Amino acid sequence: MNSRDTLITELNVLENFDPLVPEEYQNSEYLMLGNLSPLVQSTVITRLNKRPKLIAMDTMNFWMDIAMGDLEKTISMVDLLIINDEEARQLSGEYSLVKAARLIRGMGPKILIIKKGEHGALLFVKDEVFFAPALPLEEVFDPTGAGDTFAGGFMGHIASTGDLSFENLKRAVIYGSAMASFCVEKFGTERLLDLKSEEISSRIERFVRLADFDMNVLVK
Amino acid sequence: MNSRDTLITELNVLENFDPLVPEEYQNSEYLMLGNLSPLVQSTVITRLNKRPKLIAMDTMNFWMDIAMGDLEKTISMVDLLIINDEEARQLSGEYSLVKAARLIRGMGPKILIIKKGEHGALLFVKDEVFFAPALPLEEVFDPTGAGDTFAGGFMGHIASTGDLSFENLKRAVIYGSAMASFCVEKFGTERLLDLKSEEISSRIERFVRLADFDMNVLVK
Repeated sequence: MNSRDTLITELNVLENFDPLVPEEYQNSEYLMLGNLSPLVQSTVITRLNKRPKLIAMDTMNFWMDIAMGDLEKTISMVDLLIINDEEARQLSGEYSLVKAARLIRGMGPKILIIKKGEHGALLFVKDEVFFAPALPLEEVFDPTGAGDTFAGGFMGHIASTGDLSFENLKRAVIYGSAMASFCVEKFGTERLLDLKSEEISSRIERFVRLADFDMNVLVK
Repeated sequence: MNSRDTLITELNVLENFDPLVPEEYQNSEYLMLGNLSPLVQSTVITRLNKRPKLIAMDTMNFWMDIAMGDLEKTISMVDLLIINDEEARQLSGEYSLVKAARLIRGMGPKILIIKKGEHGALLFVKDEVFFAPALPLEEVFDPTGAGDTFAGGFMGHIASTGDLSFENLKRAVIYGSAMASFCVEKFGTERLLDLKSEEISSRIERFVRLADFDMNVLVK
């Protein structure tokens, strides 16, 4: 089977996947919809008795190619969409990420994160935009899972603070970027398994130094 | 003539160009070597009676293709090299910009700026690295001259402050980025001709907000 056939098969499995939400997950305050079929994602939302404080969603160009209607419907139901630059361009039909962001946020999500891989990430909230750097790495051993790790780090910070302000969303993007920078250093999830909290703090510190500058010094 | 022939012709003109340094420029503290043949660039350096406080240099892949020996010699004579990511990769033979930066700085320049266009710029000084954001723009009307405008904004800030500290080099990168962001908004130098200083200040303020985050807030 070629890769498209493989994906279609996977799709059929997914379409028949009935996402039952276990009782103990019913009152979750934060929902992260991983990159599955938009129908499965929206079914999860409708099966929650109470709307979470934040519903975040990942997706990819594959769903734009074959299920744009479902995808648009699901996007209209979420608070935060996390996609990469190529996906943002395909979803909006706009090359400029500023224009793309405006169109995509018009589809529903109040918050949009556009990931740019080794070039960092953009966070759009209200009239604000934040440019998070990516750590310049000596070597990327295996990029698999970097996007999911970003989402996990982001949601972990939001869930542990309960703060949806712009300032805290920015911090969450930095946490997500830091976690993703670990992920790519080894194969699969290997680097994340025995990660110590001091390693995370010192990685965060590197992001702070990397992006730090102070213009409030008068020119002589 | 095809574009390569045109360039070769230009090259011949440049090779025969004898860069005399006017007397009133002899004690310049800051020298920016624009993207000319490396032989012309090094001749300018050797014709200065006194070494400037900072010698900066721009170059391009064309010189790497046809005059690598001269280019390496000139690079070894400067303090700061300003190139883009593609050029850094070609010059070093390394894809990773961290590895490329190490190799290039081993060729001479203590300071290296790698410009990444819409993805910002990296500044390498000693063991430090700074990631400057690029302003996400609605539209890029004409990118011609953005690199030279960056260099001009950078050197202008350095020359007006006389401060070569890492902190001030970072500010200079932000000034360069801000000036380049104006350049691309209109055709050629049009946008720069009547630029007001308040417009520059407010553009700088946008860069500050764009990259600002604060991790020094305890997680609840």
